[in-house]
Amino acid sequence: MANAYDPATGAGLDPATQRLLDRRDRVLGPSYRLFYREPVAVQSAEGLWLRGMDGRAYLDAYNNVPAIGHSHPAVTAAVGAQIATLNTHTRYLTDPVVDYAERIVAKFPAPLERVTFACTGSEAVDLAIRTAQYGTGNRGLIVTEHAYHGTTHAAAQVSPSLGPNNPVGDHVALIPSIDTARAPAHEVATRLLDSVSAAIADLNERGHGVAAVILDSVFSSDGVQVEPAGFLAPVVQAVHDAGGLYIADEVQPGFGRTGEWWGFQRHGIVPDLVVLGKPMGNGVPISAVVGTVAAQERFGSEVRYFNTFGGNPVSIAAATAVLDVIEQDGLVEHAARVGGELLSGLQSLMGDYERITDVRGAGLFLAADLGSRDAGLSPDPELAARVVNALRDEGVLISASGPAAATLKIRPPLPFTSNHADLLLEKLELVLRRETRA
Amino acid sequence: MANAYDPATGAGLDPATQRLLDRRDRVLGPSYRLFYREPVAVQSAEGLWLRGMDGRAYLDAYNNVPAIGHSHPAVTAAVGAQIATLNTHTRYLTDPVVDYAERIVAKFPAPLERVTFACTGSEAVDLAIRTAQYGTGNRGLIVTEHAYHGTTHAAAQVSPSLGPNNPVGDHVALIPSIDTARAPAHEVATRLLDSVSAAIADLNERGHGVAAVILDSVFSSDGVQVEPAGFLAPVVQAVHDAGGLYIADEVQPGFGRTGEWWGFQRHGIVPDLVVLGKPMGNGVPISAVVGTVAAQERFGSEVRYFNTFGGNPVSIAAATAVLDVIEQDGLVEHAARVGGELLSGLQSLMGDYERITDVRGAGLFLAADLGSRDAGLSPDPELAARVVNALRDEGVLISASGPAAATLKIRPPLPFTSNHADLLLEKLELVLRRETRA
Repeated sequence: MANAYDPATGAGLDPATQRLLDRRDRVLGPSYRLFYREPVAVQSAEGLWLRGMDGRAYLDAYNNVPAIGHSHPAVTAAVGAQIATLNTHTRYLTDPVVDYAERIVAKFPAPLERVTFACTGSEAVDLAIRTAQYGTGNRGLIVTEHAYHGTTHAAAQVSPSLGPNNPVGDHVALIPSIDTARAPAHEVATRLLDSVSAAIADLNERGHGVAAVILDSVFSSDGVQVEPAGFLAPVVQAVHDAGGLYIADEVQPGFGRTGEWWGFQRHGIVPDLVVLGKPMGNGVPISAVVGTVAAQERFGSEVRYFNTFGGNPVSIAAATAVLDVIEQDGLVEHAARVGGELLSGLQSLMGDYERITDVRGAGLFLAADLGSRDAGLSPDPELAARVVNALRDEGVLISASGPAAATLKIRPPLPFTSNHADLLLEKLELVLRRETRA
Repeated sequence: MANAYDPATGAGLDPATQRLLDRRDRVLGPSYRLFYREPVAVQSAEGLWLRGMDGRAYLDAYNNVPAIGHSHPAVTAAVGAQIATLNTHTRYLTDPVVDYAERIVAKFPAPLERVTFACTGSEAVDLAIRTAQYGTGNRGLIVTEHAYHGTTHAAAQVSPSLGPNNPVGDHVALIPSIDTARAPAHEVATRLLDSVSAAIADLNERGHGVAAVILDSVFSSDGVQVEPAGFLAPVVQAVHDAGGLYIADEVQPGFGRTGEWWGFQRHGIVPDLVVLGKPMGNGVPISAVVGTVAAQERFGSEVRYFNTFGGNPVSIAAATAVLDVIEQDGLVEHAARVGGELLSGLQSLMGDYERITDVRGAGLFLAADLGSRDAGLSPDPELAARVVNALRDEGVLISASGPAAATLKIRPPLPFTSNHADLLLEKLELVLRRETRA
């Protein structure tokens, strides 16, 4: 995992942090990992800022869950009112889930017109897989070789980025990560289509058939790949021709981050199933699958699905507040505008620092590759780790990502302003100057 | 599914309910099902009572999620304070998750000493399966033939109660449902052990080996099977001898419902992994796997697990309030006492109504079989459906369960009092008198 705290090589921590860490290690399971060479202990958060237990303020340029900002009063008010009134499940009739379902479905192009609620992106991916496999009668799934789609058994099987010990299923065909920094723009769509076509042939040969291709609409774990817009379109046709579905994983790009409501929109496509998660409730657990009736009917009528907490009125209240604020504050357009400014700033830095080998982004989902400008644009994960940790020490939180873990990933809450962008760029330049001194 | 609303045979609904239902059907996925011949539309809830949109009060004798009562002010206060302060994930250090982890782990016997958080019981079951399979190197899983363990792909594969279209994996061996009404008490443990031993042999023969046996500690979906206490003990030894783990599914029995903190305690066993869910946050999504270091170490260190919403401070705040209230109000002892009274009342009704063929329970998890007192105790699912729906019309909510869907399942929030029990018994007698007139 990129940017994980390593107790063996970690810095000497202050005594209070070390005590909390020791207590944590004694009671939490061995799966837990922390971010940063020196983990950040957090006391509170508001808007774009985390307040550390060390008393310092950290600019959050990484968390896409608190989409409308940390501790947003609209979420606090909505959740507080609902939890004092009613919190139950969808086997009773309640108003809030229906009201919200109508609003969220209206954000999608026809025929994406039905929504099923769960609690996490992983659960929604898992449900989309079950729906696609049962509906098509096929088992095969196509994902990129550095994909991340979740942590349930079925979602982890399509998440090779979890590492070599995480078993990828025999029914899964991996296609090469898209790499727009190294591919000529006019070849991105062709290469992707060729990869998908080969995967389809492979799955058919192995007797699995094609249930679905699952693609994160901005390829978050593949290093953020967004240009040229439209490169996903041929994939939809190819997977349909093979009898499979197109599943758009919008857990990371969804809800306005890319400067449009959904990341798939910039490619001009209409998926069969769309998976929503992280930002949906600003941190209150809620996720969903939005899909066509055709894609969902067979599974829904013959197998069914019930998630006790899925669509509960309290999670729905949080999600409703998120929609309200995104709409009222114009955060989709805001993400496009400020994201554009930040991308320009990164491009300008790239002009001054040759160790930045590519920058790219859509709205407030941005990436900068670090490495050498040789023929292969050799990535430098050590430099990326140094930059991420130096920025943390300067009070700015981002992380590293991508197949080589050499891509800086910048993904702040949506109310990130031009001033925040300026601060980030200023600190990034400071750190680059220091860390790239030859 | 027992007790599902069927639009084809459903009663004519009042216009407001029908309008809400129509709106719901237009936007929710085809998987959704409602309870009762006439669905209950809910406006608000407090303590043991749901308030319907029809203005009526319904005694909730069925929902085990609002464990400490609907809309409990302690949960409202805790969630409200935390959500206004901080809600983030476990890759930063925060106090609440460590404080809670220490408290929850202390509720378990050694060596159950580490906890991993997720959001739903299904996710926790899924994680326990991944942990067991990776840790043991085996794939095989043993569950009862009417088990329900969840809705992710992997959890649904061990949930045959979801029906014939829900595929059970080849790596899953089913053992007969325990049926304490039809088995002599002294044979329950022997029969179960024989079944498990046969399943172990079967899985070994099919080359899967044994990763785990997964048993709901009160067999909720198998009709609630609780006596004689201790019958689970031989299973633990058998599965260990086969190289597998014992996973206790405490999503339904956990948190005091059975009159002890955990359902497995009445059997005097110590599982390797324990799955927690539903009542844990009184409706705010949170779940967990509690386990030994030995059972979790290999998966945790070599594969890892991260759940974005798992262990978030807001869900943890709700869970902390639940622990506080259970402890302060003595709800474990309360469940034992009132559950005992209710069981006596059901036994007394069984003396008067021969269509009740068995009653049983542990704490506030109770069951009554309906059928004929012939040699096979033939179950009567139609009578059970009539009783459940007639009780609903009388303002008391329970449901039907079990392999034959002929078992009344009674599972109220824990603050259910003797007065509530009297009301339930009075209404049940009224309904039985009417529905069993020959």
